[in-house]
Amino acid sequence: MTDTAISADVEAAVLESCRRAKVASRVLATATRLTKDAALNAMADGLVADAARIVAANAKDVDRERAGGMSPGLLDRLTLTEERIAKIAEALRFLASLPDPVGEIKRGSTLPNGLRLIQKAVPMGVVGMIYEARPNVTVDAAGLALKSGNAAVLRGGSAAAESNEVIVAVLQDALESVGLPRDAVQSIDAYGREGARVLMHARGLVDVLVPRGGKGLIQTVVRESTVPAIETGEGNCHVYLDASAPLQRSIDIVVNSKTHRVGVCNAAETLLVHKDAADDKLALVLAALHEAGVTLHVDDATRYLAPDNVPTVPATEEDWETEYLSMDLAVKVVDSIEDAIAHIGRYSTGHTEAIVTDDINAAEQFVSHVDSAAVIVNASTRFTDGGEFGLGAEIGISTQKLHARGPMGLAELTTTTWVVYGDGHVRS
Amino acid sequence: MTDTAISADVEAAVLESCRRAKVASRVLATATRLTKDAALNAMADGLVADAARIVAANAKDVDRERAGGMSPGLLDRLTLTEERIAKIAEALRFLASLPDPVGEIKRGSTLPNGLRLIQKAVPMGVVGMIYEARPNVTVDAAGLALKSGNAAVLRGGSAAAESNEVIVAVLQDALESVGLPRDAVQSIDAYGREGARVLMHARGLVDVLVPRGGKGLIQTVVRESTVPAIETGEGNCHVYLDASAPLQRSIDIVVNSKTHRVGVCNAAETLLVHKDAADDKLALVLAALHEAGVTLHVDDATRYLAPDNVPTVPATEEDWETEYLSMDLAVKVVDSIEDAIAHIGRYSTGHTEAIVTDDINAAEQFVSHVDSAAVIVNASTRFTDGGEFGLGAEIGISTQKLHARGPMGLAELTTTTWVVYGDGHVRS
Repeated sequence: MTDTAISADVEAAVLESCRRAKVASRVLATATRLTKDAALNAMADGLVADAARIVAANAKDVDRERAGGMSPGLLDRLTLTEERIAKIAEALRFLASLPDPVGEIKRGSTLPNGLRLIQKAVPMGVVGMIYEARPNVTVDAAGLALKSGNAAVLRGGSAAAESNEVIVAVLQDALESVGLPRDAVQSIDAYGREGARVLMHARGLVDVLVPRGGKGLIQTVVRESTVPAIETGEGNCHVYLDASAPLQRSIDIVVNSKTHRVGVCNAAETLLVHKDAADDKLALVLAALHEAGVTLHVDDATRYLAPDNVPTVPATEEDWETEYLSMDLAVKVVDSIEDAIAHIGRYSTGHTEAIVTDDINAAEQFVSHVDSAAVIVNASTRFTDGGEFGLGAEIGISTQKLHARGPMGLAELTTTTWVVYGDGHVRS
Repeated sequence: MTDTAISADVEAAVLESCRRAKVASRVLATATRLTKDAALNAMADGLVADAARIVAANAKDVDRERAGGMSPGLLDRLTLTEERIAKIAEALRFLASLPDPVGEIKRGSTLPNGLRLIQKAVPMGVVGMIYEARPNVTVDAAGLALKSGNAAVLRGGSAAAESNEVIVAVLQDALESVGLPRDAVQSIDAYGREGARVLMHARGLVDVLVPRGGKGLIQTVVRESTVPAIETGEGNCHVYLDASAPLQRSIDIVVNSKTHRVGVCNAAETLLVHKDAADDKLALVLAALHEAGVTLHVDDATRYLAPDNVPTVPATEEDWETEYLSMDLAVKVVDSIEDAIAHIGRYSTGHTEAIVTDDINAAEQFVSHVDSAAVIVNASTRFTDGGEFGLGAEIGISTQKLHARGPMGLAELTTTTWVVYGDGHVRS
């Protein structure tokens, strides 16, 4: 996106949207939970009532993209049905059932001089979202932003433009029906990629930008944006079978981490096996993976240990770096837990790594030395998820260290302010 | 800095520094508090023992910059004396006395399926600092980074290069003396502005970048950096005298906020006065400010109310936008608290705003509607400070909303990781 010139008209229009979102955000910031929940429920009602109209608009997007050669997987994500819309609406009602993150007191004390100090959660203000071809994210993002007291400026991509236009209008009607400003949820899809670039540079008007989508999209946003952006979702996740890993548990966790759902960021992409576990267990683990339909990209030691009826592909440097998002897994035998930790340090995207072990010392060493958003002992990598963690809802999984790390729920869409009460205190 | 080409040699050297810092950071991440505190005390001892050598190196910097025309204020900040070095060393010993922020459990629970979930504080990894002509920041930043388990890569600017070189060597000797890696504190001053630019783009090697200095420096870092950066320190702070503001408290707080120390980010730069308070109190407030030596940049209503013996300068649009950092204050009469809040919303940098009032409703309205890092009721703006807030130490004051807002202490130099314990859990 970097080289495209931005027309003055697009720039003015998108900045004006952001300015109106900023104004609306000040209303949302002091809206009560009752009002916000009423809006969420009205949004859910509106989506269900207008489901046929949304499906019709969505069909235009799907037809256009199918003709344009979009892959079946992406087409499936793009497609809305009345049943899917009902589920999306249900998620809004669930959001309404969650506690309000705004106003929570984080820290506080009375200082030696008598000043009373309170650090409390307040909304970010304006949340920008840049995503691709997933109209359900339009609703999710708007709902999460609203519940956390933020206005949302959404750029949902041209592939879902017809769907998003209708959906945003429904959401805005719902806002209006409870007396909240329509500007609290806006789409800038009409301004294309130029509009997305303006959003990335709307520093001072947009408080945080959350990209969701493929690696290319996320890296573009993170590198180009001058608005603070959160890197999400890239997951080159590892499972490490320690020397002491029990066989059945190893098979269960590896197979689940790889195959439970393959197109997601918390799926395992590389299996590391301690050489002492490899000798008697790796063959059975590989057989189970093969039976589950996994293509195995292996190092020499693994190939040597693989059963004759389990086909393998030689792994290259690229395999260690790849987030397959498919039924592929890289497999490597390591000499020690230190080697496993070093491999992870080199190739991981910092999302989730799991160890299978019976050894408390190995578990502690792994937890202390692996630098990822989630480190899991004796469970599937698939648990790194806002819903599974009990956060209620999730706007993405942060793989960076600033602000939020791991699943981002409602609390991660707030910031804090310090409120200080004195009775005429001055510094001496 | 944007247009300078970067030589391959500089890029390679700075990235190599960052890589070595990353390796060192993994050692610091698991260093005990005892070891880290021993290093801080050894650093303090080393600075005091080598004070003469540091002062001699500093004299070269000061002489060069004085000849080059550096302003007296900046020269003062650049200058080190043995007495100042003793104070800097004392600050390191104070850091050693503070609790370790690493390992603190932030949240945790046992999930319905029995998974045990712990969110705990861990170091960021590598902290980059870009600052100017303040050799004391070299020690502060290294000490704060060390205590929070982070490696530091420092770019302290050419004006303090001789001082920083000697200081960093002393700090590295101290690290070595307690068995910690020298690479945990590094300077990249030798690579000039090109080196700073490489640091700003060392994504994946540097986890967070904290600029400290003038507006130009901070904006350059924030705009150009692809490493997550924290915007710090710009403070166009306001004091608002509400209709109910008591006279003596108004005078105390306004004079203290403006004149206690003028070159700092939490000094007041604009005074807003409700018209009902203006009639009988503004003249006395202006007289007190004039007596304290403040130059008053005023709107028409204020000029009309100013006593004959208090000179004023007509305020222009620029005055409302300016962080003077000097004995100047912009003054404006507003019709209502809403007008005051709107003025602040338009011109504030989001640092600190104070209200003086006896009216609980006005205080609540101000706190709810002003969107700044600190909102102060009936006290001086000068209290927004890590030391005053009891955070122990401060690496800067964040005026952005992501990650940290307001004074950044040791806790703000950590991130979190989720640790999950299961006994073979898989997702179904």
